Amino acid sequence: MPEFFKVASPQQIFDSLAGFAGLALEQIDLEHALGRVLGRDIISQEELPPRARSTMDGYAVRAENTFGASDAVPALLKIAGRVAMGSLPDISVSQGQAAEIPTGGFLPEGADAVVMVEYTNPLGNGEIEVTRPVARGDNVLERAGDVTLGEIVLPAGRRLRPQDVGMLAGLGVTEITVFKKPRVAIVSTGDEIIPVTETPSPGQIRDINSYAISALVESVGGLPVTCEIVRDEPDLLKSALANALEMADVVVISGGSSVGERDHIVEVVNSFPLVEIHAHGIAISPGKPTLLAGVQGKPVFGLPGHPVSAIVVAQVFLLPFLKYLEGEELKKEPIGRQVRAVLATSVHSPHGREEYTRVKLERERDGLVARPVFGKSGMMSTLVKADGFFVIPIHAEGVAAGETIDVYLF
Amino acid sequence: MPEFFKVASPQQIFDSLAGFAGLALEQIDLEHALGRVLGRDIISQEELPPRARSTMDGYAVRAENTFGASDAVPALLKIAGRVAMGSLPDISVSQGQAAEIPTGGFLPEGADAVVMVEYTNPLGNGEIEVTRPVARGDNVLERAGDVTLGEIVLPAGRRLRPQDVGMLAGLGVTEITVFKKPRVAIVSTGDEIIPVTETPSPGQIRDINSYAISALVESVGGLPVTCEIVRDEPDLLKSALANALEMADVVVISGGSSVGERDHIVEVVNSFPLVEIHAHGIAISPGKPTLLAGVQGKPVFGLPGHPVSAIVVAQVFLLPFLKYLEGEELKKEPIGRQVRAVLATSVHSPHGREEYTRVKLERERDGLVARPVFGKSGMMSTLVKADGFFVIPIHAEGVAAGETIDVYLF
Repeated sequence: MPEFFKVASPQQIFDSLAGFAGLALEQIDLEHALGRVLGRDIISQEELPPRARSTMDGYAVRAENTFGASDAVPALLKIAGRVAMGSLPDISVSQGQAAEIPTGGFLPEGADAVVMVEYTNPLGNGEIEVTRPVARGDNVLERAGDVTLGEIVLPAGRRLRPQDVGMLAGLGVTEITVFKKPRVAIVSTGDEIIPVTETPSPGQIRDINSYAISALVESVGGLPVTCEIVRDEPDLLKSALANALEMADVVVISGGSSVGERDHIVEVVNSFPLVEIHAHGIAISPGKPTLLAGVQGKPVFGLPGHPVSAIVVAQVFLLPFLKYLEGEELKKEPIGRQVRAVLATSVHSPHGREEYTRVKLERERDGLVARPVFGKSGMMSTLVKADGFFVIPIHAEGVAAGETIDVYLF
Repeated sequence: MPEFFKVASPQQIFDSLAGFAGLALEQIDLEHALGRVLGRDIISQEELPPRARSTMDGYAVRAENTFGASDAVPALLKIAGRVAMGSLPDISVSQGQAAEIPTGGFLPEGADAVVMVEYTNPLGNGEIEVTRPVARGDNVLERAGDVTLGEIVLPAGRRLRPQDVGMLAGLGVTEITVFKKPRVAIVSTGDEIIPVTETPSPGQIRDINSYAISALVESVGGLPVTCEIVRDEPDLLKSALANALEMADVVVISGGSSVGERDHIVEVVNSFPLVEIHAHGIAISPGKPTLLAGVQGKPVFGLPGHPVSAIVVAQVFLLPFLKYLEGEELKKEPIGRQVRAVLATSVHSPHGREEYTRVKLERERDGLVARPVFGKSGMMSTLVKADGFFVIPIHAEGVAAGETIDVYLF
């Protein structure tokens, strides 16, 4: 039985992944912008706001007319009119005058500050008392105070958040250039694997990986394409891989957890022109029997058939890679939310491999406590019961109870 | 000018929100399960695995036949055959025998442990040497060792993660009962607001809120329904609200940042039968001019017209509420990823309101540093430049530089 011939460290895997080219750009409507990654800087074509606006309900004034105003000695101003929303003010504020102004209203000519309504008293005779002084610019958002003309408002590589979408709307940007979403072909292989809709005969198991890997791809905004289950025969594998390479940016073949199956996948990958095997085995646990290759420039992941291993490898390597293909910087660590916790039980790990230990988190008085979810390799329930995992580095022999760890949440 | 008449604390808002009924259930296919919230416990109808399986490539043996085995004194076993994938083993392992077995293979009759291939030497004559002893159950996942019959595998209220979807596939659960997604009608109001596709005349501004609030709703898996922009006239507002209540589970009206507009919205809400005003103003900043009402049992949020305020209020109150409607427990805090950081500059806050201060995070040698993004109220760029925000509690007067804060990431 041959063993792995090119075991790579996690760092080497990330270095290989960084060598693949990112995806092409496309134009989309603003309606579909959330979560997409900008392919080009957004440069403002206008100023926001286009004119000075009030940030409060109150009165637009000349600041100098309020100097020294107090409850005891209020400033007396004549009401020049009211600023309406939706049009330019048709009034102006001269010496000794004030104009009623709503939040967001444009400042009338002559005014340079706004007194909040709380610090005014209407006298009923067309005049108000102002009981606090304001300085120039108080409660006013100046013209271009939010966005200046020609400014880079959002940089290429930014994954758009709701407020970013709002900013684009504010600037009238209704079409944007983004990186395409990664299309990932998912191929489950193995003679024992059957579709989930069928009832397994003795010896058969349902296709967990197609569903779990699809969901993982979906969770980072990728486009999973689930292919048919392929029996462990080189000819069938070859045409399945050719088909997958044709239609997708990334191919994930899962299966081959036994040595015989692994050999078939490696053989089949090697039978294509322009192949580079980056790793045949990674120094990690779970997930050692992972293949990473480039075929005609496209990345091919051969994930272990064991669902637990396949899911962990996808979490740690595939998901950050998909974000990188979509224009983000390659983060060389598992994606997602990280929390600090205190490890409840010591965990040992053999030297020479990076280990991903599943933990359940509990909130105790002093903070989060992480309890390892032990279980044999291949137990899906360990993943389902866990809230996340932590990493035992490749050269460590374990982590002692009481140490603080960073937990990557699922 | 009337002021707010029922200012609520953030805690009171959450208490009111917890009084609204959750959404109904629906059946969906497993393909669409990611991110949905289970409406019923998933109880296993079968055992996983259905029979004992090997977790390693190696040889299935009787553990007692390997006792005392070592490099110096290996145990000698006769190869009884090979376990194939996809069918039940047609061989058995008797005293002194071993069967070649791949990872995931079902244990043949008679065997009770697996020796890893690394600790065996084939002798070429149909025999192997075993150089390490195994105990019963070693490298074997027992029948039902992963999931037992009748076990609650996934509880109601669980938002399904990729591995949960995988587990459902493994159990052959192809249809699940989940909470409906919240349908949120979004109505922008204001005489100055125009669609983003139009060019603003002087005094007009583009409709940021419809886009930003839609994106926020989408970010937690809700279904935003953007309605037409409504001018600030009670009759138009009334028919827009009636229409929104008809089609959605939650109504978000944004606008009314000036006192006059706010009055219209409150009047219109009050003109419906079965109205309860929970809050007219919240003791927060930004976002004070927020209305929360129940109209015919449906929640109506009146968000400030200022995009920054509207977005912050939606982050803090609307999003956790949407998750609650969809079957999760109501978390009385902003949703999303939280990180610890050291505050770079002291921030003051008036006593009596909870303040959400936007910060930019920088990684320095000792960890994350949070720098407040200062800017006038209403500057969208403060939200775009910020990585998140932290909360200054209602009764605090600020947070000093150097203190450790929890930052909610956008």
